[in-house]
Order: sequence, then structure tokens, then C-alpha cells
Amino acid sequence: MGEVTLGLFGFGNVGRAVARVLLEKGREFEERYGLKFNVVGVADTSALIWDPEGLDLREVLEVKERFGRLSEWRNDYEVYELPPGEAVAEINADLVVDVTNDREAHTWHLRALESGKGVITSNKPPLAFHYAEIIEAAEKRGLPYLFEATVMAGTPIIGLLRETLLGDRVESIEAVLNGTTTYILSRMEEGLGFEEALKEAQKLGIAERDPSGDILGIDAGYKATILHCLAFYPITFDEISRRGIDEITSEDVRKARENGKTLRLVAKVEEGRVSVEPLEVPRSSPLAVSSTQNAAVIKTDLLGELVIRGAGAGLKETASGVVSDIIKAALGIV
Amino acid sequence: MGEVTLGLFGFGNVGRAVARVLLEKGREFEERYGLKFNVVGVADTSALIWDPEGLDLREVLEVKERFGRLSEWRNDYEVYELPPGEAVAEINADLVVDVTNDREAHTWHLRALESGKGVITSNKPPLAFHYAEIIEAAEKRGLPYLFEATVMAGTPIIGLLRETLLGDRVESIEAVLNGTTTYILSRMEEGLGFEEALKEAQKLGIAERDPSGDILGIDAGYKATILHCLAFYPITFDEISRRGIDEITSEDVRKARENGKTLRLVAKVEEGRVSVEPLEVPRSSPLAVSSTQNAAVIKTDLLGELVIRGAGAGLKETASGVVSDIIKAALGIV
Repeated sequence: MGEVTLGLFGFGNVGRAVARVLLEKGREFEERYGLKFNVVGVADTSALIWDPEGLDLREVLEVKERFGRLSEWRNDYEVYELPPGEAVAEINADLVVDVTNDREAHTWHLRALESGKGVITSNKPPLAFHYAEIIEAAEKRGLPYLFEATVMAGTPIIGLLRETLLGDRVESIEAVLNGTTTYILSRMEEGLGFEEALKEAQKLGIAERDPSGDILGIDAGYKATILHCLAFYPITFDEISRRGIDEITSEDVRKARENGKTLRLVAKVEEGRVSVEPLEVPRSSPLAVSSTQNAAVIKTDLLGELVIRGAGAGLKETASGVVSDIIKAALGIV
Repeated sequence: MGEVTLGLFGFGNVGRAVARVLLEKGREFEERYGLKFNVVGVADTSALIWDPEGLDLREVLEVKERFGRLSEWRNDYEVYELPPGEAVAEINADLVVDVTNDREAHTWHLRALESGKGVITSNKPPLAFHYAEIIEAAEKRGLPYLFEATVMAGTPIIGLLRETLLGDRVESIEAVLNGTTTYILSRMEEGLGFEEALKEAQKLGIAERDPSGDILGIDAGYKATILHCLAFYPITFDEISRRGIDEITSEDVRKARENGKTLRLVAKVEEGRVSVEPLEVPRSSPLAVSSTQNAAVIKTDLLGELVIRGAGAGLKETASGVVSDIIKAALGIV
């Protein structure tokens, strides 16, 4: 039995979902992989809880859920107010797991790698802005840096491009990578105006209070940038072309419908060229997904056309990607 | 630059497609992976050509294409009539690549593993009948045994189950895994009788002269067996339930159509239960594929429903799976 120690940074909805999967499926992972995960640190924005012997995740979840913040911890674990940059260097974890939204997380990802720790992340900006630097740092040290959950939640498009389609040269990827815009466009097809549809999405928790990341195509743009880095060569988010759905009118939606098509926010990734924009897609297209499903059509020189479709959001669904990466990294370590 | 030596067993259509990909994309693989492949042996049913320094694949392809058999070789390489079981032990290859249809190939796969060589195969019966023994032998020696091309050609369903969906527990797989039956059923929908449709498929090279492997669901059954071994636990082909399309009538096809559905040969894989049979699927289902496309719907505890769809046959498409495996194995060796 190999034991692997983890530091979990970010304890919002996704972080707690990851903790719950590790807790509920710990026994399964021991049996299937001979791996035992020991979470030695958990951080939210209020505090870092740390015990080199390992934390009781059930307790940590309870405190967070009862009090809303880890700084309320009144137990025998140590509670620190270390910023992540220092925490990742200090704690004795094999793997650092980033499920925060910290836009500047690349600094502590690099710090983690420098201190000999592998990194698993669902956080997109570090890769959308610093892919080349981060991957080089990880490769130089022979450490895992895995990021399945950054694109299409746990639907394994990253693993597919990075680890399985090795003989093929990718020619293009077309994909719907953002579920919030799909929801709004679908509701507009059913007669709502843009503002109404957006408000409804916010009420349902599908769109955030500040919805600009989804609406303006920033989220899809981050993901498309990451796909380009993987399939071709490293670029940054600043180099892509992007138009959101904020100017889409009911008239546009109706027109698409009259043409037998449907509007979706489509990411196109070709060598040296990435765009995100609302496009009319045929109703029979694999890209005509609904709700929070994502889909990608990957064209390669040998295989031709490959379609992968699955959850693009959701807590368990995102935890799936994070935990699969944790296992993958752990299997390389033990 | 890491050099990896290969022994290629089987030099029919798929074997030659693999050789062509290695030849045409050799430079690309050197640049992308720092890997140089050196094919030191090539065998067809007539002979084994062998040069420890490496063969000129262009020449080997020419001889095969001009004379139809490698035993016609009149050059300075050594030509042997070793059976594969002896050949795999003798040649100095890091990896043995089986693209034959040898039903008894498990014997020489085991022999290859015993002599310290990794195995890549597109040949299904060894896995459909001897999965447990083979995988155990490979794991015991820490050698790669990869088989992406056995199911859905190069469409990476094997990699997906084996290497990326690590945190998820698979609940079920439903899939269309045989293109020949899809072709015949599609033509029957267009008005042909079973015999007519079959003859046409044979004329086009889609069905073999002896079509029973496809028609009776044996090919799909092999593949479904392999998926069960991967997703759950090892079983053999003898344990699955199977009904082919040989008794499907024009009346059955018409009925499905009247219900707004379409008949496909569907493999269902659940823990301890595998079936292959013609089923009516809704026209909007991911399983309502056409021509040689294959599709699989994988349900898991965390991700929910995942669809993968792509080529299920074809020479380049099968070579994609074989070559991706060769690269994957090589990256683990060098």
C-alpha cells in the first residue's frame, strides 16, 4: 500500500466535492490501486489547517459547513494564516491540489514544483497565461503537473490529447466548452430575452453573480487556450480572438432557428489560431449540446473525426477530473 | 534521442499501414517525443525478415507489395521461417507488435513477455480468451502490454478506461463496436434484403469473404469482452451472451423505422454481464451511428454519461491506435 500525502488548496464547492470523493471512495482506491491518500493540509481563504499526521476530512468538512470558514477551527490541529505561496513550500505534501480561483496561482504552482511537489489543478488562469513556464518547470524536475478538470470538468479531453492520441497530429478542435452560455441561448430559443435568461440562470446558480467570465467568452477562451497549448504549442489567452454572447438578440436566435440551426458559443482551435464566438450549428451537429454538457470534435491526420461529449460542469463531475489526476500522479510516485 | 527497437508481426493491410505511419511520421515522432523507432524484424505468414541493425521499411513494403510475400526477399537481410513463438524470443526488439489475426497469439505474447519484451496488439482473441493471464504476466515483469486498437480502432476508448477515468467507477457501457453490421443494417433500411446487403458489403471489402465474425456478433463480442475486463474484472468470450444480425429480416428493420428507431448491433457491458444483440435505438441516440463509425456511452458514478464516437475501422485509423501504443510504451522505456 503506497501512501500519498496531499495539500488541498481551495475549499469552496469543488474543494469540498474533492474531499468528499476522497473520503467516500478511499476504500475503493485502496483496493483498486493500492493507494492511500492522506490529506495533511486544507486551506480556504481564511486559514490553512495542517497536521503532518493527516487530517480527518469528515471533521474538516463539518467545520467548514457549520461555520463557513476554516479559521473557526477550535481543535487540536494547527491553524495558520499562511498565504499559499508559503504554505506550499512548508507543508510536507507529495501533491498540491489547487481548486481555487486564484488568478495568480501560477506563482505558488511554481513554488510547489520548486519544493519538489507535484501539482493538480482545476484552476484555469495559471495555464491560460503561463503554460510554457509551468510545464517546463514540471518537466525539468520530473514532477507531475496535471489539469484534467480545467477543460470539460472530468470529461477526459486533456488526458485524451496529452496521453492517448500520441501517434496523431491534431488538425483542429471545435468545441462547446461553456455550459452557462448554452443554457442562456437555449432559454432564448424558448422565447426569453437575453436579460431574462441571464437572470434565470443566476437564480438557478448556473451563472455567477458577476456573469462576465461566462457571457463574454472568457471562461471558454481560457479553455480553448489550454487546448491549443496541448494540441499545438504554448500561447496565452491574450493571443486569441473572442466574442461573447452579450450582444446576441432574440432576433439572432430566431434566425438560426429558421435556418434549422442553433446558436452555441463555439471555440475553434487550429495551429496558431484560436477563436471563441457564437455560431450557428446544425441541430444534428455534435456541438448542438444542451444544458451543462460540453462537446468537442477533434480532427486528426490518422483518425479523422473524433467526438467526445460529457459533463462540462458540476461538482462531482469536476471532482472526477481532479481525483483522476490525483490517482494518476500518485501511481507515478509510489 | 531514445531509440526503441520493434518487431512487427503481421504484414497484411494493417501491418503495412503501421509501417507506413512509422516511415512517414518518423521525423515528427523524433521531434515531438525524442523517439526513434528502429524496426528490426518484420514477419508475414511466409517469413520473418530480420536485421539487428534495422530494416529499411521502404524496401520491405516494396517487396511485399510487388511479390505479395516476404519469403520472396532476395536481399542482404536474413530471411527465416521461424514461427512467431520462436521469433519473439530470438529477435532483439524492445517491443513486439502483433497485427496478425492469429487466434493462438497469446502463446507468443506470453513468450515475448517472458523474454523481457513489451507487447502492442490489435489482435483481439488473446485478450478475449486470456486477459487475466496475459495482464498478470505483463504486470509481474513491469512490461507494457497495450491494446488500444483492439476496440474502436484508434478511437481511444481503451486509454480512456485504463488511464484517464481513474477516479470513476464505471456503471455500464453501451456501444456499437462493429461497422460491418451497421453498414448492412443501414442498407436494409434503404430497402435491400439481408443477403443483398451482405453481398454488397463483401463486394466493397467492408465484409470479409467469410463474414461470420461480423454477422454473428463475434467481433463485437470480443470487443465487449475486452471492455468488461478493463472496466470490471477479467472474463472470457465464452461467458457472454450473443446474438448476431443473421436472423434480422426486412420486416424487423421496417418495424424499427416505424417506431422512429434504427436497428444496430449493440454491446451492453455491466459488471458480470455482457451482451451483444441487435436492438432498436432512437435516431437521436449517440448509438445511431452510420458507416464504420463506432460509438460508446459510458456511465460512471461521478461523471454521469460520457460519449465517445469515432472511427471503428480503417487502416490509418487502426494504425493510429497501434502507433499511439508504440509511442506510449516507448516513452515508458527510454
